[in-house]
Amino acid sequence: MKRLKLGMVGGGAGAFIGAVHRIAARLDDHYELVCGAFSSSAEKSKASGVLLGLAPERVYSSYTELFEREKQLPESERVEVISIVTPNHVHFEPAKLALESGFHVILDKPATFSLDEAKQLKKVVAETGRFLCLTHTYTGYPMVKEARQIVSSGRLGKIRKVYVEYPQGWLSTFEEGSGNKQASWRTDPEQSGIAGAMGDIGTHAFNLAEYVSGLEVTRLCADINIMVEGRRLDDDGAVLLKFNGNASGVLMATQVAAGEENNIKIRVYGEKGGIEWQQCDANSLQLKWPGRPLEILRTGGKYLGTFATHNIRTPAGHPEGYLEAFANLYSNFALCIKARLAGKEPQPEWLDFPGIEEGLRGMAFIENVIASGKSEKKWLDFIL
Amino acid sequence: MKRLKLGMVGGGAGAFIGAVHRIAARLDDHYELVCGAFSSSAEKSKASGVLLGLAPERVYSSYTELFEREKQLPESERVEVISIVTPNHVHFEPAKLALESGFHVILDKPATFSLDEAKQLKKVVAETGRFLCLTHTYTGYPMVKEARQIVSSGRLGKIRKVYVEYPQGWLSTFEEGSGNKQASWRTDPEQSGIAGAMGDIGTHAFNLAEYVSGLEVTRLCADINIMVEGRRLDDDGAVLLKFNGNASGVLMATQVAAGEENNIKIRVYGEKGGIEWQQCDANSLQLKWPGRPLEILRTGGKYLGTFATHNIRTPAGHPEGYLEAFANLYSNFALCIKARLAGKEPQPEWLDFPGIEEGLRGMAFIENVIASGKSEKKWLDFIL
Amino acid sequence: MKRLKLGMVGGGAGAFIGAVHRIAARLDDHYELVCGAFSSSAEKSKASGVLLGLAPERVYSSYTELFEREKQLPESERVEVISIVTPNHVHFEPAKLALESGFHVILDKPATFSLDEAKQLKKVVAETGRFLCLTHTYTGYPMVKEARQIVSSGRLGKIRKVYVEYPQGWLSTFEEGSGNKQASWRTDPEQSGIAGAMGDIGTHAFNLAEYVSGLEVTRLCADINIMVEGRRLDDDGAVLLKFNGNASGVLMATQVAAGEENNIKIRVYGEKGGIEWQQCDANSLQLKWPGRPLEILRTGGKYLGTFATHNIRTPAGHPEGYLEAFANLYSNFALCIKARLAGKEPQPEWLDFPGIEEGLRGMAFIENVIASGKSEKKWLDFIL
Amino acid sequence: MKRLKLGMVGGGAGAFIGAVHRIAARLDDHYELVCGAFSSSAEKSKASGVLLGLAPERVYSSYTELFEREKQLPESERVEVISIVTPNHVHFEPAKLALESGFHVILDKPATFSLDEAKQLKKVVAETGRFLCLTHTYTGYPMVKEARQIVSSGRLGKIRKVYVEYPQGWLSTFEEGSGNKQASWRTDPEQSGIAGAMGDIGTHAFNLAEYVSGLEVTRLCADINIMVEGRRLDDDGAVLLKFNGNASGVLMATQVAAGEENNIKIRVYGEKGGIEWQQCDANSLQLKWPGRPLEILRTGGKYLGTFATHNIRTPAGHPEGYLEAFANLYSNFALCIKARLAGKEPQPEWLDFPGIEEGLRGMAFIENVIASGKSEKKWLDFIL
Repeated sequence: MKRLKLGMVGGGAGAFIGAVHRIAARLDDHYELVCGAFSSSAEKSKASGVLLGLAPERVYSSYTELFEREKQLPESERVEVISIVTPNHVHFEPAKLALESGFHVILDKPATFSLDEAKQLKKVVAETGRFLCLTHTYTGYPMVKEARQIVSSGRLGKIRKVYVEYPQGWLSTFEEGSGNKQASWRTDPEQSGIAGAMGDIGTHAFNLAEYVSGLEVTRLCADINIMVEGRRLDDDGAVLLKFNGNASGVLMATQVAAGEENNIKIRVYGEKGGIEWQQCDANSLQLKWPGRPLEILRTGGKYLGTFATHNIRTPAGHPEGYLEAFANLYSNFALCIKARLAGKEPQPEWLDFPGIEEGLRGMAFIENVIASGKSEKKWLDFIL
Repeated sequence: MKRLKLGMVGGGAGAFIGAVHRIAARLDDHYELVCGAFSSSAEKSKASGVLLGLAPERVYSSYTELFEREKQLPESERVEVISIVTPNHVHFEPAKLALESGFHVILDKPATFSLDEAKQLKKVVAETGRFLCLTHTYTGYPMVKEARQIVSSGRLGKIRKVYVEYPQGWLSTFEEGSGNKQASWRTDPEQSGIAGAMGDIGTHAFNLAEYVSGLEVTRLCADINIMVEGRRLDDDGAVLLKFNGNASGVLMATQVAAGEENNIKIRVYGEKGGIEWQQCDANSLQLKWPGRPLEILRTGGKYLGTFATHNIRTPAGHPEGYLEAFANLYSNFALCIKARLAGKEPQPEWLDFPGIEEGLRGMAFIENVIASGKSEKKWLDFIL
Repeated sequence: MKRLKLGMVGGGAGAFIGAVHRIAARLDDHYELVCGAFSSSAEKSKASGVLLGLAPERVYSSYTELFEREKQLPESERVEVISIVTPNHVHFEPAKLALESGFHVILDKPATFSLDEAKQLKKVVAETGRFLCLTHTYTGYPMVKEARQIVSSGRLGKIRKVYVEYPQGWLSTFEEGSGNKQASWRTDPEQSGIAGAMGDIGTHAFNLAEYVSGLEVTRLCADINIMVEGRRLDDDGAVLLKFNGNASGVLMATQVAAGEENNIKIRVYGEKGGIEWQQCDANSLQLKWPGRPLEILRTGGKYLGTFATHNIRTPAGHPEGYLEAFANLYSNFALCIKARLAGKEPQPEWLDFPGIEEGLRGMAFIENVIASGKSEKKWLDFIL
Repeated sequence: MKRLKLGMVGGGAGAFIGAVHRIAARLDDHYELVCGAFSSSAEKSKASGVLLGLAPERVYSSYTELFEREKQLPESERVEVISIVTPNHVHFEPAKLALESGFHVILDKPATFSLDEAKQLKKVVAETGRFLCLTHTYTGYPMVKEARQIVSSGRLGKIRKVYVEYPQGWLSTFEEGSGNKQASWRTDPEQSGIAGAMGDIGTHAFNLAEYVSGLEVTRLCADINIMVEGRRLDDDGAVLLKFNGNASGVLMATQVAAGEENNIKIRVYGEKGGIEWQQCDANSLQLKWPGRPLEILRTGGKYLGTFATHNIRTPAGHPEGYLEAFANLYSNFALCIKARLAGKEPQPEWLDFPGIEEGLRGMAFIENVIASGKSEKKWLDFIL
């Protein structure tokens, strides 16, 4: 079994999401970390490389150096996949350069700093013919995939309602004032872009809604707020949604719901039944039917569809969690790359990871939702 | 222990809510049903009276007859409290007449057919000096009262967010076309007024939000829908809310969430913590705190406040439900009337039932929310 | 609709269970309280009668006086049903006397002070031909009835395992030493009999196990403990059970599980599936199947069997609780009496309340389980 | 960061638990798989080695060959830790040989085929001075560690009751008759030893009970059953337990609870409060207090103790699961070995993994519980 050679941009020691990416990469043994440019500080990058046990000559001072030098290595040694886990304003350039250097790219969400960058990136993906995976982790959960497959099978009938919410509480106070690094860049327009909560977690909720429902948002009406004094970007919002096919819904994303953790949750109702999933009970999926008992589907159940089943490691009753969901993105991405390397067609279950299209729509969500928040008009069209 | 003499307008055999009112009245033994005009059909009214074991001479053909005749009875026999459980278009007239005839009134929600009627009714209440109770059942749950008391104590800090939802699924199909009586009048503008779901359950959600948060809605932005073909009134809606004190929130009320029962739910977040309650787990109240364990308060707990404690019958662990919540409205109302009869001041816990003020705001909610649904402007002021 | 005339022995002001019985009697309007001997103190009995609004001449100083005097009243006034809500040592005499005086009897559990008394009482019931209802409340829950009906339908296959538990925490400390009246009589062998926890809650668990499984315990092996120093009766126990049909199980009942409320719970597994119910989520019933999704049945669901459906008042989603379960016992008992008065056969759903047979088995459980607790032999036959 | 060189005995392609061990080893990057003897068939072993990407010369035909050849490699290449994931009857020999060859050992539970073997193995561990980790996975969950730390802190007071249960349903039918490999060896006395369910999952429950309570079982009384016709080993059992310090409890382990997954659960009650944890909600720990709200502690909470905190990778709200718990065993084991290699003292949190002592007690549990199942005497002393 060949491991793909992985390089990393960002994600040095101390960064939360960098460590998560590395665990996700290791979990199913599809990758081997071979190089990295872990920090904009050469010194910090080196230190992180040492901690990670990398060969010193493959720990670089910058991503430009990384791409330049790795390109010159023989193919058998050269990095194949680049993970980009930097703040939003350092997504587009390294992603573009990585793709143009011939590498596949795993990119943290939201895709870019602006919708315009996302459009450019889409072109680069198309031109280079490389794969790109955007880490909307929640669509990696097996029971989310099951939800999507049930909806798309038509069992719920025509979809009417989509409710999605992502309540967090960790920005209830002015965290960015007390040196919290995670809070600082997320609330800084220079690093995050025009949105705070809407970019950080609103995009996750938006992506989950479209993924599970199989629908696309066509219009929206947003209430966007800064609830904590002194904050520079939105930390709270709620959005009325219209989808194609006459469905409607609500998206809620807030970082000031004091006491909440990360319980992203989705409910979808069709003419015949409904479905509910939430992260805090990630291994269960509720199916609701008028006039019939509630059904609870469970990770590992033998009755699950092909998409869920492909993304499960352990028998029913052994909970899988966030890291396994993350690993599903990495592993499906690897399976697709390996299939191509082997000249084979990837299976539909392997191709089921978010890519540049989802990235583009996520950036459009950010721009549209912020525009709506400022508008006095009720409904704005969702402009791509 | 004196029982109050109770009469009923509407609620004949077969009516769901009439039977609920009677159980609520009996539960704590504060009332004795002595008379009624149970149907607009004199015959049906008589038949219901027989089933209920009433003296035939006190089963009337109409509410006008009821008030007329009861007024003439000696005080020791005369009815004292009138429960009105008719469809919305028959609320105002009997309520007004009952009050003017010297009776106290228990009125099913929403208060009236229109905001204008509610304003008139408010005047009648003031002029007659009678008590009026509006049966917003959910504020009768002990843990909802506890939630309100905790919020008002300031333990959560200044309130920032209020999320309230009432998802039902029973109108997912065109029930009114198949002779379902409950569905028929609720979807008929002549009987229900200008709103369907928003009047039937939206008002409950609105009332719960204002009750628990202690805030008042000042602006709103609504998405109001008819999802089932052929239906004449809204069966679905979502509303962005602004409250005084700079809080904001979301109200969701739908009757087309196929598979849902009646799980009305509220979440309120302040600067320091949050609170969550839902009907399907009515005896629990969640308290959420940043950096501290989640707390679950339970009906019957010795640590509860005076309002919750006053409204509980059984020790912790013996679940109380919807009928007990309903009975709490009836019983507190009775305690207030008895206190007045005894020349005493009612305790604050007894006075804690919804009245004409809540009825007025509920009717204003209906008119404002329907107006917003039709408006292209985002925010409409909440006009009383 | 005729109300049955109800009298009460015990249950004066301040007694928890007396008030519960009265609410249960009122809830569905099948009874009218007409007389009582509420306390062994004539004075206290009178005072309770006043509070309850009874005619003073029908508040008696003793149950003997009650039966004597009521018998002499004309049939149209005379009490018809006697509720006995005294401590265990005052069950047999008033029950026997009531039956022999021609009254039907509702008796709090456990049936009597000893197995021998229960056997005698069984004879009296047979001889007098009166009805007797034993208030094992938990079998009054609709979803418990549904569980029994599902098991008896054979859907789970042959039953193999029965797990039942009743954890309480309220006797974790020496409550009887601090004047807690509820604790005092329950821990006093002169009032409770040979068992404490096993009589008070063990019998409930035992009854629930036999009721739902449709099986009978044939052998048992018990570990019976006094965990709190100074206590005179068991406050904790666990029992290995053998049933007819080769099923086995475990019964756990404790009053020293500090922090627990009253979450009585049962699980039954057959060859094809399993079932789970617990009081803290009383309106749900879990059905578990190998290779199929978990199903959750809910009070009010249209798919429920005849027994559950008959015992529900409100539509799905409006929780019913402990008082409604209690009322189901009272109401079914009334329906049977009324049927007999009308010369009709009661429906099977009405006859579904615990009676002297369950009382006898409960007393046998107490004697067998205490004997086993003292025995060095592992298995004792369940002797009736 | 040095990776420990890992070798594997058993766990070839298709074996459930072998793959779990490898994920656990990879998750935190403490190990590198360098060699293995994956099957008793040389051919299958080679094939597995290829799939795992091992150098062909380090895939061996037998564990004896593995130890022999690896010993001769230079220290910089030589394997350091051996994972043994064979059926029970092939635990002792390879473990002994591995230890005596100078390797540290990770051993699947139960430790050995018999208590006698476990005693011998204990001696070998002592004599060789190597580390041994026994994979009782459930004690790797952070909230189980939190439970233990809370109990040991005395916050619950003196412990009185321990309830532990492990209900499974997968052996409800005669799986071993239909070629299910997992079922076949587990129900075969030649491969499993004298116990089936009691060895496979009863030992987990027993270990969890002693780990969390900090107590030791001193006496027991067991009901051990074969419920499925034709089965050769127990598939069901329940055990009354006595602990030192006068605590008592119940252990339930069954594989015929049709419809159940793997919801191992523990409850411990002391004089002042109780604690509850179950695998299906692995990231929550319930703390129950008389007269105070229920508290729910969550993985990632900042209020957790040092043991839980050390074993968590992600912020609160991102669920960790079974694989992470398993990885905690591997990672702590690695930290201890690395500490020793560095001449440092391991931290208490690192040393918190099950070892030969737990293995010995587990084997004693098996022998005692099976003996009790056959005995007519109620209580048997727990003989080590």
